[in-house]
Amino acid sequence: MIGFFDSGFGGLTVMKEYLKRYPEFDYMYLGDQANYPYGPHSQERIEKLTLAGVGYLVEQGCELIIVACNTASAEALRAVQEKYQGKPVILGVLVPTAQEALKQSRFGNVGLIATRSTVDSGKYERELENYTEFYQPKDKRAREKVKLYSQACPLLVPLIEEGLIKHPATRMILRNYLRPLKNAHVDTLILGCTHYPLLQKEINRMMGKNCRVISSSEASVEAIADYFEKHPELLEKLSKNGVRRYLTTDSPERFAALGGQFLGQKIEVERVEYE
Amino acid sequence: MIGFFDSGFGGLTVMKEYLKRYPEFDYMYLGDQANYPYGPHSQERIEKLTLAGVGYLVEQGCELIIVACNTASAEALRAVQEKYQGKPVILGVLVPTAQEALKQSRFGNVGLIATRSTVDSGKYERELENYTEFYQPKDKRAREKVKLYSQACPLLVPLIEEGLIKHPATRMILRNYLRPLKNAHVDTLILGCTHYPLLQKEINRMMGKNCRVISSSEASVEAIADYFEKHPELLEKLSKNGVRRYLTTDSPERFAALGGQFLGQKIEVERVEYE
Repeated sequence: MIGFFDSGFGGLTVMKEYLKRYPEFDYMYLGDQANYPYGPHSQERIEKLTLAGVGYLVEQGCELIIVACNTASAEALRAVQEKYQGKPVILGVLVPTAQEALKQSRFGNVGLIATRSTVDSGKYERELENYTEFYQPKDKRAREKVKLYSQACPLLVPLIEEGLIKHPATRMILRNYLRPLKNAHVDTLILGCTHYPLLQKEINRMMGKNCRVISSSEASVEAIADYFEKHPELLEKLSKNGVRRYLTTDSPERFAALGGQFLGQKIEVERVEYE
Repeated sequence: MIGFFDSGFGGLTVMKEYLKRYPEFDYMYLGDQANYPYGPHSQERIEKLTLAGVGYLVEQGCELIIVACNTASAEALRAVQEKYQGKPVILGVLVPTAQEALKQSRFGNVGLIATRSTVDSGKYERELENYTEFYQPKDKRAREKVKLYSQACPLLVPLIEEGLIKHPATRMILRNYLRPLKNAHVDTLILGCTHYPLLQKEINRMMGKNCRVISSSEASVEAIADYFEKHPELLEKLSKNGVRRYLTTDSPERFAALGGQFLGQKIEVERVEYE
């Protein structure tokens, strides 16, 4: 079973990519709605909540767990990985997204839009540095070093959750957020929040054809394909019975309504409790 | 000591009115930032969190506690009052706001803007019915019964917290929210969320001079003045040493930054833990 842990619905855009690519596996998605959103919480609290949620998925027997939330990946992945030491395998979305951005960048001018806490954590900056070997500019005018331009976009998640994806106010706010990144001529833009793929068309249009837009959802499934190639034993171990379970720590009705939109299909949701 | 319990900063607009009117008392404000915002939570969870927060204020010796949050008042006040049975006195913001709206309404056409959970709770509707004796229309054309038109405005809190109070996108979204209420010719509009006084100028302007705008913050302090008149023994019991304490369950720095804006003065914030 593959487990997804998220603070809410956003991780469903990640799971959607997995379901497309690997429909044969069993899946369990856990959204910690009771403490949603994680954005305004402190690092300490996000770590505590993520440890608890991942712990629940481990108990349920997941052999692979994706922390499918940029905020939780940025603030708590290390603590979770240190605790479980590879049993089971636990991966975040931040490293694959940073790597994909480095692969795609032509001039090393990378932009990031994300929640405030992801931006403030400085984790994308660090990962871009950690994996500079992925950055191989083909262009002569390329910078030697990658430079990151970050923009916190705290209003995008509520606007998306209110269904205002095509509303002029959303376009106005999005344009404000993207302006400094356009002015910095970023050639690659990281969508550092799993909600943002729902605005990707508009973002592509605003950033223009000289900028590549990288979503964590797509980057995560690309990275897992690589991982499976290097670890065929994991691929073998994963159960394949067509199971799909959606769990929430708060109201299942609310989760089913919005979650269904994110996943593009109707879902049945169960409520769980853990400490 | 007067205690204020809120899920975050909003209750500071209520406390601000108290500080203006009653600067002599001691005050303690508790914002449950760790679980903020309450809007997306279920009734059950809001009740549990409010019981815990109010319990903490009781332990600290508050003789009067204001649940200064419409969502918590709507979902959890009854449970809290049942638990403490008047010792200490615990009041919400919903009843005084509903009463004030009834006093002000000329035709019984009342509008409500609030978070989704306050609207969904149906509590304002119920309180308007419970206190119809406050509705005494002076106008011949007045309705016999009060009618409530509700509008959930989940984007206003994030827009206010992002400081976009005068941003054209905020105006656009606000206009969308208010349109159905204008079309219904409401003569009184309840600001059923303690954040909204920060947008009151704009709301007054949009609703026009034929609509009276009632804020919970002002209504709460009006009601307490009445309460003190009827219960002079409480007025006497309240301590008066100029104490002002601001407590949060999450990062004090974050709280101090935004909270200071709400209160209109710099504040020092302490972190507390309770279960």
